Amino acid sequence: MNTDIRHLLENVRNGSVSVDDALARLKKAPFEDIGYAKVDMHRHVRQGFSEVIYGAGKTAEQITGIVNTMLSGGEKTVLITRLDPEKAAAVAKEIDIDYRAVPQIGIAGRVPEPDGIGKIVIATGGTSDIPVAEEAAVTAEVLGNEVLRLYDVGVAGVHRLLSNMDYINQASVIIAVAGMEGALASVVGGLADCPVIAVPTSVGYGASFGGLSALLSMLNSCASGVGVVNIDNGFGAGYLAAMINHMEAKR
Amino acid sequence: MNTDIRHLLENVRNGSVSVDDALARLKKAPFEDIGYAKVDMHRHVRQGFSEVIYGAGKTAEQITGIVNTMLSGGEKTVLITRLDPEKAAAVAKEIDIDYRAVPQIGIAGRVPEPDGIGKIVIATGGTSDIPVAEEAAVTAEVLGNEVLRLYDVGVAGVHRLLSNMDYINQASVIIAVAGMEGALASVVGGLADCPVIAVPTSVGYGASFGGLSALLSMLNSCASGVGVVNIDNGFGAGYLAAMINHMEAKR
Amino acid sequence: MNTDIRHLLENVRNGSVSVDDALARLKKAPFEDIGYAKVDMHRHVRQGFSEVIYGAGKTAEQITGIVNTMLSGGEKTVLITRLDPEKAAAVAKEIDIDYRAVPQIGIAGRVPEPDGIGKIVIATGGTSDIPVAEEAAVTAEVLGNEVLRLYDVGVAGVHRLLSNMDYINQASVIIAVAGMEGALASVVGGLADCPVIAVPTSVGYGASFGGLSALLSMLNSCASGVGVVNIDNGFGAGYLAAMINHMEAKR
Amino acid sequence: MNTDIRHLLENVRNGSVSVDDALARLKKAPFEDIGYAKVDMHRHVRQGFSEVIYGAGKTAEQITGIVNTMLSGGEKTVLITRLDPEKAAAVAKEIDIDYRAVPQIGIAGRVPEPDGIGKIVIATGGTSDIPVAEEAAVTAEVLGNEVLRLYDVGVAGVHRLLSNMDYINQASVIIAVAGMEGALASVVGGLADCPVIAVPTSVGYGASFGGLSALLSMLNSCASGVGVVNIDNGFGAGYLAAMINHMEAKR
Amino acid sequence: MNTDIRHLLENVRNGSVSVDDALARLKKAPFEDIGYAKVDMHRHVRQGFSEVIYGAGKTAEQITGIVNTMLSGGEKTVLITRLDPEKAAAVAKEIDIDYRAVPQIGIAGRVPEPDGIGKIVIATGGTSDIPVAEEAAVTAEVLGNEVLRLYDVGVAGVHRLLSNMDYINQASVIIAVAGMEGALASVVGGLADCPVIAVPTSVGYGASFGGLSALLSMLNSCASGVGVVNIDNGFGAGYLAAMINHMEAKR
Amino acid sequence: MNTDIRHLLENVRNGSVSVDDALARLKKAPFEDIGYAKVDMHRHVRQGFSEVIYGAGKTAEQITGIVNTMLSGGEKTVLITRLDPEKAAAVAKEIDIDYRAVPQIGIAGRVPEPDGIGKIVIATGGTSDIPVAEEAAVTAEVLGNEVLRLYDVGVAGVHRLLSNMDYINQASVIIAVAGMEGALASVVGGLADCPVIAVPTSVGYGASFGGLSALLSMLNSCASGVGVVNIDNGFGAGYLAAMINHMEAKR
Amino acid sequence: MNTDIRHLLENVRNGSVSVDDALARLKKAPFEDIGYAKVDMHRHVRQGFSEVIYGAGKTAEQITGIVNTMLSGGEKTVLITRLDPEKAAAVAKEIDIDYRAVPQIGIAGRVPEPDGIGKIVIATGGTSDIPVAEEAAVTAEVLGNEVLRLYDVGVAGVHRLLSNMDYINQASVIIAVAGMEGALASVVGGLADCPVIAVPTSVGYGASFGGLSALLSMLNSCASGVGVVNIDNGFGAGYLAAMINHMEAKR
Amino acid sequence: MNTDIRHLLENVRNGSVSVDDALARLKKAPFEDIGYAKVDMHRHVRQGFSEVIYGAGKTAEQITGIVNTMLSGGEKTVLITRLDPEKAAAVAKEIDIDYRAVPQIGIAGRVPEPDGIGKIVIATGGTSDIPVAEEAAVTAEVLGNEVLRLYDVGVAGVHRLLSNMDYINQASVIIAVAGMEGALASVVGGLADCPVIAVPTSVGYGASFGGLSALLSMLNSCASGVGVVNIDNGFGAGYLAAMINHMEAKR
Repeated sequence: MNTDIRHLLENVRNGSVSVDDALARLKKAPFEDIGYAKVDMHRHVRQGFSEVIYGAGKTAEQITGIVNTMLSGGEKTVLITRLDPEKAAAVAKEIDIDYRAVPQIGIAGRVPEPDGIGKIVIATGGTSDIPVAEEAAVTAEVLGNEVLRLYDVGVAGVHRLLSNMDYINQASVIIAVAGMEGALASVVGGLADCPVIAVPTSVGYGASFGGLSALLSMLNSCASGVGVVNIDNGFGAGYLAAMINHMEAKR
Repeated sequence: MNTDIRHLLENVRNGSVSVDDALARLKKAPFEDIGYAKVDMHRHVRQGFSEVIYGAGKTAEQITGIVNTMLSGGEKTVLITRLDPEKAAAVAKEIDIDYRAVPQIGIAGRVPEPDGIGKIVIATGGTSDIPVAEEAAVTAEVLGNEVLRLYDVGVAGVHRLLSNMDYINQASVIIAVAGMEGALASVVGGLADCPVIAVPTSVGYGASFGGLSALLSMLNSCASGVGVVNIDNGFGAGYLAAMINHMEAKR
Repeated sequence: MNTDIRHLLENVRNGSVSVDDALARLKKAPFEDIGYAKVDMHRHVRQGFSEVIYGAGKTAEQITGIVNTMLSGGEKTVLITRLDPEKAAAVAKEIDIDYRAVPQIGIAGRVPEPDGIGKIVIATGGTSDIPVAEEAAVTAEVLGNEVLRLYDVGVAGVHRLLSNMDYINQASVIIAVAGMEGALASVVGGLADCPVIAVPTSVGYGASFGGLSALLSMLNSCASGVGVVNIDNGFGAGYLAAMINHMEAKR
Repeated sequence: MNTDIRHLLENVRNGSVSVDDALARLKKAPFEDIGYAKVDMHRHVRQGFSEVIYGAGKTAEQITGIVNTMLSGGEKTVLITRLDPEKAAAVAKEIDIDYRAVPQIGIAGRVPEPDGIGKIVIATGGTSDIPVAEEAAVTAEVLGNEVLRLYDVGVAGVHRLLSNMDYINQASVIIAVAGMEGALASVVGGLADCPVIAVPTSVGYGASFGGLSALLSMLNSCASGVGVVNIDNGFGAGYLAAMINHMEAKR
Repeated sequence: MNTDIRHLLENVRNGSVSVDDALARLKKAPFEDIGYAKVDMHRHVRQGFSEVIYGAGKTAEQITGIVNTMLSGGEKTVLITRLDPEKAAAVAKEIDIDYRAVPQIGIAGRVPEPDGIGKIVIATGGTSDIPVAEEAAVTAEVLGNEVLRLYDVGVAGVHRLLSNMDYINQASVIIAVAGMEGALASVVGGLADCPVIAVPTSVGYGASFGGLSALLSMLNSCASGVGVVNIDNGFGAGYLAAMINHMEAKR
Repeated sequence: MNTDIRHLLENVRNGSVSVDDALARLKKAPFEDIGYAKVDMHRHVRQGFSEVIYGAGKTAEQITGIVNTMLSGGEKTVLITRLDPEKAAAVAKEIDIDYRAVPQIGIAGRVPEPDGIGKIVIATGGTSDIPVAEEAAVTAEVLGNEVLRLYDVGVAGVHRLLSNMDYINQASVIIAVAGMEGALASVVGGLADCPVIAVPTSVGYGASFGGLSALLSMLNSCASGVGVVNIDNGFGAGYLAAMINHMEAKR
Repeated sequence: MNTDIRHLLENVRNGSVSVDDALARLKKAPFEDIGYAKVDMHRHVRQGFSEVIYGAGKTAEQITGIVNTMLSGGEKTVLITRLDPEKAAAVAKEIDIDYRAVPQIGIAGRVPEPDGIGKIVIATGGTSDIPVAEEAAVTAEVLGNEVLRLYDVGVAGVHRLLSNMDYINQASVIIAVAGMEGALASVVGGLADCPVIAVPTSVGYGASFGGLSALLSMLNSCASGVGVVNIDNGFGAGYLAAMINHMEAKR
Repeated sequence: MNTDIRHLLENVRNGSVSVDDALARLKKAPFEDIGYAKVDMHRHVRQGFSEVIYGAGKTAEQITGIVNTMLSGGEKTVLITRLDPEKAAAVAKEIDIDYRAVPQIGIAGRVPEPDGIGKIVIATGGTSDIPVAEEAAVTAEVLGNEVLRLYDVGVAGVHRLLSNMDYINQASVIIAVAGMEGALASVVGGLADCPVIAVPTSVGYGASFGGLSALLSMLNSCASGVGVVNIDNGFGAGYLAAMINHMEAKR
């Protein structure tokens, strides 16, 4: 950003940009204001990743509008999370999207080739955690990562996890997705030598209190190297894992 | 109890007990009222175990009074839990007690020989959980059980637990004691073929919320065969384990 | 497990098993991977009980797939909990199941004869707790236990409980199921001389907070010998009770 | 109050009171403003009971000041609750008080003769609940009630309570004081035919969460006729019981 | 109860009752077991009030069965609370009930004439609290009380309450029903010279957390003489008020 | 109010008002009692603003009745909040209302010209917060304020906010509406030199716990000059902002 | 800020400022970095108020350092909140401060003359709330406001508040400070025609849960025109009130 | 691990290791059992990092014992966290440690040269967050990372953060440490193009609830690429950051 401002100031100095124009540019944000949203047009530049739309609180019209603004702004891939089937159908009438029903994700544009420094392993405690895990998996794939899925390896049958140590050992980053007691993160964290991103899920009943039990477990993990995201936030985990998996490529 | 009442009624019938006496006996509880406490004198008969005093909310004088009432009532062993060193010293001036400093337990009377159907294994997640584990261990020992201690086998280093599968395999009952994320209960529950009693501890900080995290984890355990007691309730776990470990001997 | 490894190692020694084969076997887990689930095939051997499927988070297709994998693997009885009527109907088209509507349980295979060391008494505080109690009861029956039902004996009319002391007295294990203030566990725990498993239910309104009130009550029970399971977890209570009721038979 | 206003208006009408005086009187509150407190001088008239000072948040000087204002205003008895021994000693230097150490209550003035319609029975679950129970007892006594104490009758030994049914039967109002699981209120509520006031106490540890467990239990009591006051609020229970016990005498 | 036992014992003594019969009677509870419920037949005798059925967790068939058992047992009035319109219609096909739609209460049998010592005033903070208030009102009426309704007098317009001081002044007991911040109980408690029963309601949104806000407010009321019941528990408040309002009549 | 009473008293003095009439007037509240509600007729006088009806807990008939009472009492504008489309349609059949679908507000009567001392800026963190923001905006407009909308300027893209510093700088009051982590209030509070009213919204999932996360954030704001209202309480924020924005006009 | 940037750009244009200097100035923040703190030097300019130091988490040395940096930067008054007596004594050795013991506030520099548009009334529910109220009062005074104190007017004796309607009526802003049930804010909010800032306090015990009860009450206030600050945050209330009370003076 | 087992199996095959020895080795865990702890001797190998001791729950003797076991096992650096000054002094008598008082960390052995792929920036919201930040900083340094400290840049003065964009821009990983509303993580997350690790602190009062407010804020961050650790868990953040910062070096 400093470079841009220096450049602008030099242009002011040499008269190629007027004071008023410079002031306007300094004020002009790198986003487009379409009324109900201020669409970020420089995110790919700023953060090195595509733009993402959280679909849950928006109408199909709003989603379509934002996607179109992005695509016409040069964005190559746009991810729409929490897109329920009805909205997806409505959006699909206007825009060409690849809709994944299990994680309720829509993808506009192309999914890039994996270019991370390694593989992202996504493990779940049970079968019911798969939708959240898939949100993480598809997010990571759209952001250019190779993903290995290791589902239903909860700690109540720890041999299922130990039998898959080759998955654990080759991971660059691991995403541990679990509800109920959420112990998977701790066990994986103790076995792995790479960063672990823990995703508590709302799977469970009674004293799971909508994922609170798993969340607290993961925050209190006695294993080191574990970071936690919000309950059911597969997207956030996939995004963070993608960032980490692109560490060496970036520099 | 029915037997007692039948006997009493027969005595009323044959005139050997008057109506007023019978009424009095029916009203007379199997406890002794010493003002600040109603000391249960039939518990050993009724539940097959010695009497226990929760020392935390009582003065040394009250404790001494209750113990003396029990001993003179024929009780052979009395357990005093949550007895801090100062009170223990004060009690010890009046009564002969065996004081265990780590679990803060006092024992009046003799510790019986183990006569359970097997061994009780007590496992902890970490070193800081040992005081609670010892409360369970001493309780179980006083109630006639052989105890195996398996400390510092938390799930962040699951190989420490797996290397001690012989402990797990020979257990009649297992008590899993852990704070922080409390995952030990689930992993042990999945490995063991016997009842597991889970004791959450208040070990931890921040989002452990005084043991709430471990408690919720244990209640939501995805392993079957796990019962949970209150946070830091080593005594309760030891007592329940002792009951279970005396199942076959009792009949 | 040690025995198996020893045997394998001896075969490696005598050449009847190659190093590569041994390595493969050591890695090969005692489960079958059917994509969305890793079905545990050795559980009956390892824990002495049949396999159980938690139906709530799975599709009818997934449930059918897992049951078939189990049955073809030699399992004689499979329990499916939290199976709502719609899913049950869908599953019943593919597999022969015995569906119990009140506890929403499906049973594939045969229910064994009771072979425990005694009877399991299941008590409820009220009529509304019956579905949870039945989940416990059917679970215990499927696991080979005789069950006595003692329903609607809540503590607000303690004479209803006292009039049934013969139930309490002959129990090997008692399961106390109650919502609202959950006091049943404490009163039963004080009357009984056997382990009590407390099941809080979500019955109630307002400050019952979905079962939290009963859960906290039961965890804080002033009676000894009480273990608690998750809110509405009838299955867990039935399973643990079955384990305890098979203590002496097992050795 | 209407009567007073009518009287005042009539005096305005007949000229014996000026408009300004009437306005001033209408504004003049029935309390005395001593800077840090507005002391209620008409409470005895308005509510039929003596004035009470909550000592916890006030200095000894403030307490002394308020008591003196009251006594010189004609109050015959003043109750000071939550008065720790240090403050009590400081207050006692200035005013003649009767200090009760267990409930930490100071009484200035005389304790009246009981004049209620019956007896107030105060029951506790355990020995540790006695200080709260005594706060209720002394409050009730100061407000003119006969009090029967029935301590250590917790539900884990329900025979202790049943053996004292004569206490329960002769009560006009019952105050049930209990910590931990707080089940006493429900059991007493089911046995008694009079109003029950439930006082949760902070006695307990772990998941008692400072009395929350007992509070929720009591609010969810399945027994009818139970009203609940704040955790450890012995005073509130004693006051409400006194009001109820003076129902018939008052009219 | 003692009287009954004494009588029974005397009959045993004089031979008019055999030991076995006496034993059976002592065991025989004053309830009728109809499978899914143990219907209390002596409650009117024991507590001086009619029986009440909590309709929420029961089927129409169960409710009909319980009502019939009661009526044939001599009960003159049966109250069914939390009876939604569908169940009410189903019950009404079998039994003659008076259904009140606002509080969702059904009444089988006759409503008695008021015979309390005074009037019960029921005040609400707003219009939305009326259904809970009506549950209290109808309960109190069915239990023989005259009820005055004082609705929509919340503290944000305290003049509405002050203008109705004649209601407050003539009350024997006041029931204060309020959601949101629940301040009504404190203000009423300060103005009234009679017991106040506070009923928090789940009216509100956001940080009212389903009535928790009002509940905590009422428990922490700085006014004396206030007892609290569960959130939305109009029945409980009406029942307790009725008990208090019959204090003098009873003795 | 004093003025009114003085005037009344003077009339009593000079005989133009009788004592009984004066008493009646003193008792007569400035509201109209229409059974289910006590409609405040003097609010405009007392608080300088129009009357507001909280539509959520009322039937269309009740709403219509209250509005009519107000309008016939001389009220020029009546705001109905939380009015869902169905009720709005029913009300619209009886009364002429201007219905705003996004904030679910109905307006009866005319919207006045802005007459505040400045502008009210309403900022939102995201698109999903708009309905709550519009409730604030319409409320403020109905109460005579000019409103500037600054939507979707959440702190994850802080340049969107900084690019609109001219909005911030010209505000008289700012309303910051945000869910999830609710950080908008702190950032805005640090940038602005005017009062900030923070409105947490229930937008979010998982550990947002229905707006609790945003609420706690806003209460703990490290910026000074921030007041918080209830979760989703756009009306409350608009009302308070309007009060503040009319400070100088009022005197 | 725009003005500054425009001015800077014009200087770049006319050559009086070099590009590098302009870049440096644009980067140079209006604060001074003293290692452990970045002291805001432009706050008075930016927000129109003096700087404030939150003393709780800082050492006496750090506080002294920050104050000196401010005073030498031209600040005329510096407020230090949460300054316990020990730290105050240590700070007073280095800097001349006016220390107020009740609210634990230190003032360096002079307290300005009141120049607000009206008076700020600060009301408390009880005597124990006074320290928090004084924090608000002194803050407001230091920020140039006249403050009226109206202490111990809690709603349990609502006549104490009504007798002081002249305070309420002349207020420009009211700060309502209350613990326990926190109802003061609602009652004051209903009586007043000016903004009300509600400050929950941690005064209370048991279910007040450290001020949570009062906080929730205030957030759910049924009165309009109420904004809430953090528990015990007297400073925040005083600051916001001061801002509101300077609305007209500022423009 | 597979390599080791293969090697062992080959030795069994060729007879250089007996079956019993192999069995023993397979059982022998890579830790040393010193009674109260099972010291992990292979962690450096397994996870590429030094061993860490959580000092809070251990005695000085236990800490000394564990450190000695490690050092004699070849460990070059041992980190002891949560080591209060008293324990540190006791440990220092036995072992040569470098004690850092602010974060309460002891270091035995040497701090390695930084060898990560970039720099770790540690930002705090305020001065009071520094101890937690230093725990993160020292942990990261001991694990071979260059650390940049950016303290007191909370969002209430967002210009302090924006003025330091050069810190943000050059970071490989950022650790955002903040209490109160915890908004720093979101703002930093939106500005940075690298992974952000958020550490909520317990700094604050009232509704910060011991760090809960900041924790929830950070979990709900609307910025992507943010992982959260436990409240006050500076160590965990430093460890995870170190792992991420060594991603490229490791392969």
